[in-house]
Amino acid sequence: MQASDNEIRLFKQAWTAYAAELAQSPPSLIQQRQAFDQQHGAVPVAEGCEVHPIRSDTVQGELIIPAGADRSKALVYHHGGGYTFGSALSHRHLVSRLAKAAGVVAYNMDYRLAPEHPYPLAIDDALAAYRYVRSQGFDAADLVFAGESAGGNLTAALLLRLRSLGLEQPAGAYLLSPWLDMTQSAEAYETRAAHDPMLSRAALDQCMQAYCAGHAADDPMISPVKADLAGLPALFLQVGSDEVLLSDAMTFAQRAAHAGIGVRLHVWPEMVHAWPLFHPALPTAGLGAIAEAGDWIASRLGTR
Amino acid sequence: MQASDNEIRLFKQAWTAYAAELAQSPPSLIQQRQAFDQQHGAVPVAEGCEVHPIRSDTVQGELIIPAGADRSKALVYHHGGGYTFGSALSHRHLVSRLAKAAGVVAYNMDYRLAPEHPYPLAIDDALAAYRYVRSQGFDAADLVFAGESAGGNLTAALLLRLRSLGLEQPAGAYLLSPWLDMTQSAEAYETRAAHDPMLSRAALDQCMQAYCAGHAADDPMISPVKADLAGLPALFLQVGSDEVLLSDAMTFAQRAAHAGIGVRLHVWPEMVHAWPLFHPALPTAGLGAIAEAGDWIASRLGTR
Repeated sequence: MQASDNEIRLFKQAWTAYAAELAQSPPSLIQQRQAFDQQHGAVPVAEGCEVHPIRSDTVQGELIIPAGADRSKALVYHHGGGYTFGSALSHRHLVSRLAKAAGVVAYNMDYRLAPEHPYPLAIDDALAAYRYVRSQGFDAADLVFAGESAGGNLTAALLLRLRSLGLEQPAGAYLLSPWLDMTQSAEAYETRAAHDPMLSRAALDQCMQAYCAGHAADDPMISPVKADLAGLPALFLQVGSDEVLLSDAMTFAQRAAHAGIGVRLHVWPEMVHAWPLFHPALPTAGLGAIAEAGDWIASRLGTR
Repeated sequence: MQASDNEIRLFKQAWTAYAAELAQSPPSLIQQRQAFDQQHGAVPVAEGCEVHPIRSDTVQGELIIPAGADRSKALVYHHGGGYTFGSALSHRHLVSRLAKAAGVVAYNMDYRLAPEHPYPLAIDDALAAYRYVRSQGFDAADLVFAGESAGGNLTAALLLRLRSLGLEQPAGAYLLSPWLDMTQSAEAYETRAAHDPMLSRAALDQCMQAYCAGHAADDPMISPVKADLAGLPALFLQVGSDEVLLSDAMTFAQRAAHAGIGVRLHVWPEMVHAWPLFHPALPTAGLGAIAEAGDWIASRLGTR
């Protein structure tokens, strides 16, 4: 694990320096969105993937088709970014790699962002995307949902929304470093804060306020760690041991297990928030986690 | 998953009938030990495994060598049985399959049982076994520890004992349905009791009393969920969603993660306590879990 150790040490150092720089002159939200899309959108898509835009009145995103993929099975991905930034464009490089690793196509979906579009509009958009994907000929059992950070929140909220509407659940959900407790009151804010160069309670509170717009942060549709999880599909969670969102993943896994749900969890030591998104700097652990997630998605969809 | 669903449904029915029968005329502890060794000892060892007894003044058990195994790497296994029954003989069929799945040799160790030999004698014996295995030419990094149920407790206690003695930790520890909280006060005794045909608070309390012999059940060396877990090696936990020990595994995983340790956890839906031990009746989920554990052990030991 020496390669991985060096990678993450250098990455944390670089991030700490970058965060200090940003603190000197904080960007506006518009600047943050543009910089994020530009930086992550510049990472090449996985080799051999076609990308087809999806634009309708209710749904926006893209269909990613890896060469040789099973076109009868799909990953439906919800990007992260605190519900306030991020896009299908910024996450294309990650989603294309996940789809390729799983050997399936991916619907890499946009949704409306806060503060312009607060809760529950992102969930409405994710539900519209689910209906759109189903309309393309996929059974629910042909789908795995996924998302990282706020996209993990959106994924969990969508599962709960489907359940309350009596709509079919997908074959599984993959949550990477999910943000599942918007009260920012969990143990990891104490135990892991010193190890986490990326996230803080203050930064997450700001995103929470933008998204909640006065709605209670402990509403189970906003903080799914508070929800009854009975009836949800099999789950796979990846989280870094060195992120303040560690508790969110652990608590959600625990509640799901107590509801009788099959749960796989992998706590990656030393890793930071959503590290597979940074695979160019973290090839060992980033691409390793993508390969692991791809295997799990493939196993849920029966593609190997 | 239909095969697995039918298997576990029939198994639970059979177990419920068996438990009702036992309740009519409870066996003595001697009878229980004999019956358990007889029943499980009769399950054939994995094909192609040699079994060599180990008998010394301080160490008792056996060395299992699967055909083609890497003889420079070893699994060190601690059987379960509430610290009051079970043996290397009863667990030979399981340990041989784990060793074969991992492609390494296994030290399948005995230890003294309660109530004749209460805490901390089992830990003393496990420590002696560790020293014995090291004396056979293995570095700590060549070893993975494992155990199920009370053997998972013993495995965790041994890791803590090694840490306190400043001795080297193994490359990892695999805990199957571990019993890690002898206070029997965890949430799963409420949430999962109705689903668990095998274990109950009353039965575990009886084992606890035999093992503790008046020592406090919440001592971290007896209930490792209460221990500081910093410095422990990478962990892999398997637990059934339908066992009252669900919380023990979840809480331990959580505490280990907060201590910065790499943790993999797989909650198998519908499964009962230590289900791989019952692989003849549960071939899909039992052998599936053994294969999964073998993969993890192999990955820790770098044998594939």
